[in-house]
Amino acid sequence: MLPTPKKFKIVAAAAEGSHKLTAFDNALLDAGIGNVNLVRISSILPPSAQQDQDLELPPGSLVPTAYGSIVCEEPGTKIAAAVGIGFSSDTFGVIMEYSGQCGKAEAEAKIASMLKDAFENRGIPLVKTEIRAVEHTVEQTGCAFAAVALWY
Amino acid sequence: MLPTPKKFKIVAAAAEGSHKLTAFDNALLDAGIGNVNLVRISSILPPSAQQDQDLELPPGSLVPTAYGSIVCEEPGTKIAAAVGIGFSSDTFGVIMEYSGQCGKAEAEAKIASMLKDAFENRGIPLVKTEIRAVEHTVEQTGCAFAAVALWY
Amino acid sequence: MLPTPKKFKIVAAAAEGSHKLTAFDNALLDAGIGNVNLVRISSILPPSAQQDQDLELPPGSLVPTAYGSIVCEEPGTKIAAAVGIGFSSDTFGVIMEYSGQCGKAEAEAKIASMLKDAFENRGIPLVKTEIRAVEHTVEQTGCAFAAVALWY
Repeated sequence: MLPTPKKFKIVAAAAEGSHKLTAFDNALLDAGIGNVNLVRISSILPPSAQQDQDLELPPGSLVPTAYGSIVCEEPGTKIAAAVGIGFSSDTFGVIMEYSGQCGKAEAEAKIASMLKDAFENRGIPLVKTEIRAVEHTVEQTGCAFAAVALWY
Repeated sequence: MLPTPKKFKIVAAAAEGSHKLTAFDNALLDAGIGNVNLVRISSILPPSAQQDQDLELPPGSLVPTAYGSIVCEEPGTKIAAAVGIGFSSDTFGVIMEYSGQCGKAEAEAKIASMLKDAFENRGIPLVKTEIRAVEHTVEQTGCAFAAVALWY
Repeated sequence: MLPTPKKFKIVAAAAEGSHKLTAFDNALLDAGIGNVNLVRISSILPPSAQQDQDLELPPGSLVPTAYGSIVCEEPGTKIAAAVGIGFSSDTFGVIMEYSGQCGKAEAEAKIASMLKDAFENRGIPLVKTEIRAVEHTVEQTGCAFAAVALWY
């Protein structure tokens, strides 16, 4: 099997770029995960995974990552991305992502509500949550990005 | 290299949720693959892979999965998702996915047609197919989901 | 951790199909990567990765791949996909992808501009680039596809 990740870091950042994809690339760089290969996943925190916000990811490595992202080319538009982890007492956690044309507070509230639902639907007590969000007012081509990167 | 999967399970399910992402999450839970990390792939069944519908996937593990999915927020709309595997006699198979605003029968027919095409285009005889589909009439926020999860 | 790829191949191809997904499938076959499981990544060429355009990928294997792709069902529409790698002198490279309703030259120019930006934003000299692109005029259901497949 593919090795199950043992560590994680939660990040959020926003950036401008000359193109849609370079705005995304710049947001990843600002978030500290721009020089790796994100492998998008949906979206469970493995049991016993440890948080390490100082994780150093080798350039070019394959990094399983749950993320929300929005790119917008309408100047003046407010965009936001948020991600959150719901932790159980003794088993896996659940990751939820959101992005949209809204502010940071609204994105955070949606994540909190989704985490509550996810645990209710599983019949597991939600012990705590950690949420990161970012908002950005588009200048030319803007990207808001929030992610939980899993690692080993 | 990344290890090539050796087993698979084919599933389909539909669910409602309070948010788009929790509707998707609930459909995954109903399909029995809600507590793992889906890594989306396109979409070949490895040679000699064995079907095991009772596969137990460890929580948080990385699961290569081909899937079709639709989320819809228009009450009363019928949505469907389907997935199918075309098997050859002695080599790899091909997986096709579909989702849309239609019924189960239409989604299944599209999958059957796509599998026929995929084998014709490869010049390989199509020995048999296995198709799973689901349809759902949206109440508030509904998701239809069909997947082939690969495993080891 | 997941093993970091050591080789790569850059490809581009276009094809027609009876369905959107089989047009995509046919483009992958024409590009020589149709019988594997693409795992989409964003999008760094690992340090020291070696180009091998004759790479043989085992059927059904999991292949980390950065790609741009467009499927279009409007007959007569010109579509294009392009991918490019920017190389540094001694560390990782950056991969950029693009697809849209345009010609090959425009897609290539966008990739060149994005690679320039990506290196400027990282403060690393861009030593050389390699770009592959394809354009296609849609007959019924057409797909243009360009990719950098990473391997071991």
